[in-house]
Amino acid sequence: MPRASLRENLIAAAVEQFHARGYAATGVKDITDAAGAPKGSFYNHFQSKEALAVVALERYGITRRLETLRDTSVAPLTRLREHFEFLRDENIRAEFQGGCLVGDLAVEVADHSDALRAATRGGLEAWTEALAVAVADAQRAGEVSKTLEASTLARFVLSAWEGALISARADRSPRAFESFFTVVFGVLLR
Amino acid sequence: MPRASLRENLIAAAVEQFHARGYAATGVKDITDAAGAPKGSFYNHFQSKEALAVVALERYGITRRLETLRDTSVAPLTRLREHFEFLRDENIRAEFQGGCLVGDLAVEVADHSDALRAATRGGLEAWTEALAVAVADAQRAGEVSKTLEASTLARFVLSAWEGALISARADRSPRAFESFFTVVFGVLLR
Repeated sequence: MPRASLRENLIAAAVEQFHARGYAATGVKDITDAAGAPKGSFYNHFQSKEALAVVALERYGITRRLETLRDTSVAPLTRLREHFEFLRDENIRAEFQGGCLVGDLAVEVADHSDALRAATRGGLEAWTEALAVAVADAQRAGEVSKTLEASTLARFVLSAWEGALISARADRSPRAFESFFTVVFGVLLR
Repeated sequence: MPRASLRENLIAAAVEQFHARGYAATGVKDITDAAGAPKGSFYNHFQSKEALAVVALERYGITRRLETLRDTSVAPLTRLREHFEFLRDENIRAEFQGGCLVGDLAVEVADHSDALRAATRGGLEAWTEALAVAVADAQRAGEVSKTLEASTLARFVLSAWEGALISARADRSPRAFESFFTVVFGVLLR
């Protein structure tokens, strides 16, 4: 019977390795090595690298702290700002490397794997919905104009964030984050 | 002496193959096969796959039609809208696959190759500058508010576009493009 802790180690190693190397450049052996597991043990737990990547995306999603966007004990605009500050600070600590695993796998693999396209779409959709909750709360509180639908603003702001990660990565600088915060919190969400 | 036409074929094949498969998943043989060239001929023209990818990014940049953003015979906001309509329609024709080669390589390789990071940064920078020219022209013409600097708006709009390509790819739908046009041309650039 497969050990649960080994499975967990493989998932954690996959998140880390896909994030650091990309999907195609990561072999099963890279994952088992990083997990301190024998290569042969991999297929006791996962049918394929693709199947593990789907689970890794779910696990990564939990670390995005989407639940904070629904935390009504915090003012809606504060929730939104703190969410993106958390993501920005994480990326700055990583020296602008690694991007967002959902966006990274969408770019690299969505065209080639139905399972990973569905998983990245689901990740982006859950994120858009959580952002839309906070935007709608901000609109109800009179903090944000009701001119646009909350879901339109949420989808757009998420795109802008995913793109800012690309620019910051190419640039190894926070310039794209600065433009993001200036425009999103200075113009759009008000 | 290497044949110029073979070099051109290799560059065109590289743009196509990197775009379709991604960087790590594309081998030199995939490129020479697509170019109808013997594998051994590759190194007469390029030192490495990485060196070819730098040239492929330059070549791809030419197809982005950045010069239209500086065409003062067209009203500035019309230039901006037509630029993104061109990019959107191209992506829809490709059934939302392939993304933007500059963004794709920034995501996949910028963390691992200084040469490709510099090339993707240069591509995004040239694009930001061309967008900023049109935004500044629109501000001077009174079509867009001068509240924000043209370069800040340009950098932000480019991020939003690159991110919209990610969502459209995962979603295989134009929803992210619709949000982009609604927010950029309905709120930001006015």
